[in-house]
Amino acid sequence: MNNITNIHYGPLPADSPYVKPFRFHYTQNGKQKSWDLLKVHDSVSIVIFNVTRKKLVFVKQFRPAVYHGIISSDGVQPGDIDMVKYPPKIAVTMELCAGIIDKPISIVEIAREEILEECGYDIPADRIEEIIRYRSGVGTSGAEQTLFYAEVTDADKVPSAGGGVDDEIIDVVEYDVEEARKLTEKGTVVSSPPSFLFGLLWFLVNRAPKI
Amino acid sequence: MNNITNIHYGPLPADSPYVKPFRFHYTQNGKQKSWDLLKVHDSVSIVIFNVTRKKLVFVKQFRPAVYHGIISSDGVQPGDIDMVKYPPKIAVTMELCAGIIDKPISIVEIAREEILEECGYDIPADRIEEIIRYRSGVGTSGAEQTLFYAEVTDADKVPSAGGGVDDEIIDVVEYDVEEARKLTEKGTVVSSPPSFLFGLLWFLVNRAPKI
Repeated sequence: MNNITNIHYGPLPADSPYVKPFRFHYTQNGKQKSWDLLKVHDSVSIVIFNVTRKKLVFVKQFRPAVYHGIISSDGVQPGDIDMVKYPPKIAVTMELCAGIIDKPISIVEIAREEILEECGYDIPADRIEEIIRYRSGVGTSGAEQTLFYAEVTDADKVPSAGGGVDDEIIDVVEYDVEEARKLTEKGTVVSSPPSFLFGLLWFLVNRAPKI
Repeated sequence: MNNITNIHYGPLPADSPYVKPFRFHYTQNGKQKSWDLLKVHDSVSIVIFNVTRKKLVFVKQFRPAVYHGIISSDGVQPGDIDMVKYPPKIAVTMELCAGIIDKPISIVEIAREEILEECGYDIPADRIEEIIRYRSGVGTSGAEQTLFYAEVTDADKVPSAGGGVDDEIIDVVEYDVEEARKLTEKGTVVSSPPSFLFGLLWFLVNRAPKI
């Protein structure tokens, strides 16, 4: 997973299907304003709990955006990356199973597919429970993300599935409840998005006590 | 705050100081890959609790990115916006007090300035407690956000401050603990980022019981 080499940057092509930036203009209380933003897809994410082994199921992956965020905050230029000082593992994130909504099927079906493709559990949509919808990237994209919760068992596991499809390289990791709780404690520095922390803490407050 | 008119879009200028998109290239396990992303600033956000009135202090503002996220998910084209069906208030978010790190001062000093500028409370940095650091926008920007917690009193209030500086138009709102808890419950649809939900739930779990 971490055999990453030959990092370099280039301009964004005008036809990027993933990042579509533009300037938004409006008038607020008589004053002309603008805001630079981009369109990204709405998405789903799923807190998965394996009840057979009493483990939370998360995914880890190398995130180019996090790698760039780290080196650019240190003032490192693209041509100048010291791969010993900045090994790719610094940008391996821990996240909830998640995916973008890019097909004309219901969002719970999107969630079902991601649970299978990323984590290898094949469960019907009626075992996937919608929790909360919120807006991610309120400053840049404002896309909606829907958080789901699903309990799975070892019997739901499809041995050949998980780890992503196509070019995705995703590691599935399991945490017991007390290990996971530590990630939400004061003083933590996590390479995870806030949606991971919220989903995890929501589980700890609302479901973990009942298990 | 909500008198918003004349919404239209234009191309992103190449010199946008806020959104700098590009394509990131790398080789993973021998395979050439790329990822489209953008540089955004690292940031701080602060859970503020007014101990005099036992209220959480949040901010509300019109977010162009959220407005665009909503209408574009419905397939509405820029020239075709029905302002009755899509009034700007649909894109007023509730957030933690927050700000980007764009000055060479410590991040707790950035947090101190935002508490004053956005919410009107003047407190020293040593009353602002660092909680957790995480990565926002792991798919697009990977910027670091540091979450802080601060307790304020009515005596800390500066009558002339709050509501933002320069062109910012920010409403300060107060929630009692039980009202706020409802925002984290199953079935909620909030126009808030996941960092808001995490910060709020972190407070409810770790600080609210002691108050």
